[in-house]
Amino acid sequence: MAFNPNEHQHLRYNPLKDEWLVVSPHRALRPWSGQTETTSTEEVPRFDPNNPLCPGVTRTSGKVTPNYESTYVFTNDFPALLQEGPDPPKSDDPLFQAKPAKGTCRVICYHPHTDVYFTSLTVKEVVAVVDEWLRQMEELGRDYLWVQIFENRGAMMGCSNPHPHCQIWASSFFPNEPRIKDGNLRKYYDKYKRPMLQDYVEKELQKRERIVYENDEWVVLVPYWAVWPFETMVLPKRQIQRFTDVDCKQKEALAKTLQVTVAKYDNLFKCKFPYSMGWHGAPTGPLLGECHPYWTFHGMYYPPLLRSATVKKFMVGYELLAQAQRDLTAEKAAGLLREQPETRFA
Amino acid sequence: MAFNPNEHQHLRYNPLKDEWLVVSPHRALRPWSGQTETTSTEEVPRFDPNNPLCPGVTRTSGKVTPNYESTYVFTNDFPALLQEGPDPPKSDDPLFQAKPAKGTCRVICYHPHTDVYFTSLTVKEVVAVVDEWLRQMEELGRDYLWVQIFENRGAMMGCSNPHPHCQIWASSFFPNEPRIKDGNLRKYYDKYKRPMLQDYVEKELQKRERIVYENDEWVVLVPYWAVWPFETMVLPKRQIQRFTDVDCKQKEALAKTLQVTVAKYDNLFKCKFPYSMGWHGAPTGPLLGECHPYWTFHGMYYPPLLRSATVKKFMVGYELLAQAQRDLTAEKAAGLLREQPETRFA
Ligand SMILES: O=P(O)(O)O[C@H]1O[C@H](CO)[C@@H](O)[C@H](O)[C@H]1O
Ligand SMILES: O=P(O)(O)O[C@H]1O[C@H](CO)[C@@H](O)[C@H](O)[C@H]1O
Repeated sequence: MAFNPNEHQHLRYNPLKDEWLVVSPHRALRPWSGQTETTSTEEVPRFDPNNPLCPGVTRTSGKVTPNYESTYVFTNDFPALLQEGPDPPKSDDPLFQAKPAKGTCRVICYHPHTDVYFTSLTVKEVVAVVDEWLRQMEELGRDYLWVQIFENRGAMMGCSNPHPHCQIWASSFFPNEPRIKDGNLRKYYDKYKRPMLQDYVEKELQKRERIVYENDEWVVLVPYWAVWPFETMVLPKRQIQRFTDVDCKQKEALAKTLQVTVAKYDNLFKCKFPYSMGWHGAPTGPLLGECHPYWTFHGMYYPPLLRSATVKKFMVGYELLAQAQRDLTAEKAAGLLREQPETRFA
Repeated sequence: MAFNPNEHQHLRYNPLKDEWLVVSPHRALRPWSGQTETTSTEEVPRFDPNNPLCPGVTRTSGKVTPNYESTYVFTNDFPALLQEGPDPPKSDDPLFQAKPAKGTCRVICYHPHTDVYFTSLTVKEVVAVVDEWLRQMEELGRDYLWVQIFENRGAMMGCSNPHPHCQIWASSFFPNEPRIKDGNLRKYYDKYKRPMLQDYVEKELQKRERIVYENDEWVVLVPYWAVWPFETMVLPKRQIQRFTDVDCKQKEALAKTLQVTVAKYDNLFKCKFPYSMGWHGAPTGPLLGECHPYWTFHGMYYPPLLRSATVKKFMVGYELLAQAQRDLTAEKAAGLLREQPETRFA
């Protein structure tokens, strides 16, 4: 029997993490009788006097959200990372090691209205969001080694507020995920003298098996090693190392890319498709001066849904204790997203 | 200001994964208005003619579950891993690497009754479960490099069947989590000439800050580097490398340990406390002949709940893209579990 990746089990390698994943396409048809989720399709009001992210509303902390008209950024009232605080003592026991953690956490509201999102904003309004991301990267990147912009969309992803917003956690330390990625990108560059993700995007554009969307500047694809059923990566066609390196053309095209990606996701199961998303690029702060030719700036979407608006992929027992596993292949997932319209269902 | 780990932010090192985690104890009081879960406290019937895991019931596959009286093991009707199948072709492209995956997936029913669990079974019946785990480890360990026993408990952990059962996925490959652990255990042993987890358990027994329960043979503790709010490890007091190395005394004491651990979990929020749990020991199959003095057999519980039976910890944006983060310290979590009674609320 000839091997067919859409039918036969195999492992795939993630060169960014130096990890493998199990692909079990033969299992895609198993019945599901487990927990289902509620996904909201409900309309939210444009303004809610009790929503702390709406203009003019007083937050739990007593601070008042101003009457903003475009984006609005503030320091999280309950930040996981503070700028100040005593440092843990040094330990010489390898089993009980602590290190200082300094940082700051901010919230970025995308727009004053609660009932809008990338798909309903104008390109200009989405560019305003991208501009805000750039300003924050620039500002926080001066001091902090790592600036993580991320958005949790939907209650299923722990997001408790329907207002369109994301978060930034900037830190004095290099968090695990980007630190491991940095090491693997560097090794690849040392060996092949090319940025891994630039090679990758070029090869994917030739193979055309996992592309979801592309324009002149950006490619959205389901990576060969995707773990989440509909995971995607957003990659630049022209190599840049950091978010702050985008030029005008890339910025405009990125706004369009974000709109199309969200529209396709929402169209897939006709819902507000939940996900966590965020951006990775070369490290900043004390490392701004160093050369990072091996880094390619990119975005990631990690959506939990698997079969419908209510059935998610559980990353549980085997995944937590052993290794990630998927049934639906990356190629099938990419095909399903590719065939979705580029504008959102009404 | 003096550093207080229960008040001040810091990073902690996980020597098993070679990763760090952010601890933000100052944030423990932030309000939660996000998604809540439903946790079942509902009684299930002893026998349900539609439950495929009950004795005498015909499963979706057409196979009939026999009239078993103790434990019952069968090959999963929709296995993620098959014993046979064509292998993926070799690739010389470092970005598109596939490898063969062979394996088998089994289901172990703990008992014929659906309405029982570790806390309501007799010690003898729990020993029967441990014996079944041992038989399976022995049998599958002859052929497979890694035999992963795991249980997903509760709908929140993707478990679709209330019948008391667990799973085994045995594989020809070394999955990421134990492979990385193997490497780190080996490095520690090379450096200190002692098994890391034996050193660890001895130090924890001296410190007594994170112990949840102990008896003559086993210690249950919240590891210093725990990621999930109420994560625990089950460690032997006498060093053994594999599950199959337990002697009679350890086996009896393990049965008791399992009963107490589940009772404490259930008592904490007065519910059927959801979790994924499983066992790790030295690799098997082709590696059975090799010496693994650096391995200590141990168990892990990964429960998702944070504040109550309905509020879980979301491992989302920052965690997926950057690094694990927790508010509640390991010491506080251990204290909360320690003070729970050793028998389950009625
Ligand atoms: O118990 P099931 O139905 O086999 O499946 C469950 O556990 C598996 C192993 O952790 C996961 O891959 C699935 O996502 C989860 O739903
Ligand atoms: O959006 P919040 O309320 O800050 O919090 C949410 O995102 C954080 C960062 O991913 C997680 O640590 C929390 O578990 C989650 O509930």
